[in-house]
Amino acid sequence: MDCVFCKIVSGELPVNKEFEDDDIVVFKSNRPETPVHLLVVPKRHIESLKVAEDDDVQVLGKIQLMAKRMAEKFEIVGGYKVMVNAGKFQEVPHIHYHLKGGMN
Amino acid sequence: MDCVFCKIVSGELPVNKEFEDDDIVVFKSNRPETPVHLLVVPKRHIESLKVAEDDDVQVLGKIQLMAKRMAEKFEIVGGYKVMVNAGKFQEVPHIHYHLKGGMN
Repeated sequence: MDCVFCKIVSGELPVNKEFEDDDIVVFKSNRPETPVHLLVVPKRHIESLKVAEDDDVQVLGKIQLMAKRMAEKFEIVGGYKVMVNAGKFQEVPHIHYHLKGGMN
Repeated sequence: MDCVFCKIVSGELPVNKEFEDDDIVVFKSNRPETPVHLLVVPKRHIESLKVAEDDDVQVLGKIQLMAKRMAEKFEIVGGYKVMVNAGKFQEVPHIHYHLKGGMN
């Protein structure tokens, strides 16, 4: 696979992982838009929400809880946003949820 | 419950539901920020992602797939965003995911 996020999952492309379990990896965005900007990424290659299927429900739900836990770990006070982009708004063709916090 | 989204779920507060199943209801935002702006809401009262628990993983995952299907139903071309707000960014204290499409 010539997918940058698959290479992060496999370790071929080293990054500081903030969290990792069997299904999910979390790392900082390399182009942060907010004081805290993490990417929460399923290890399995799902290209986009546009092609997600019923089999993906469990990991997509786990990602939401993981984002919550990362917000706690990073002590985001005030509030945060969790979002996924599809189509022209999606930059890397491996589904990833943005956790953004620390902004006004 | 004095929760506006619980009242929509129960029918006490009538809105045009775009979709409904046992777990989820979808309706248009009454303050749309984009050409398509839907809210995808679990019927069960979960106050916020901040208090979501492992038992909520399934419905939070289903919400992601529902947002995808609504994007197809509303023929959103180009791309879309699915997001949830927590803390100061959350306006109604019943978790809801925004599906936003049709913007540049």
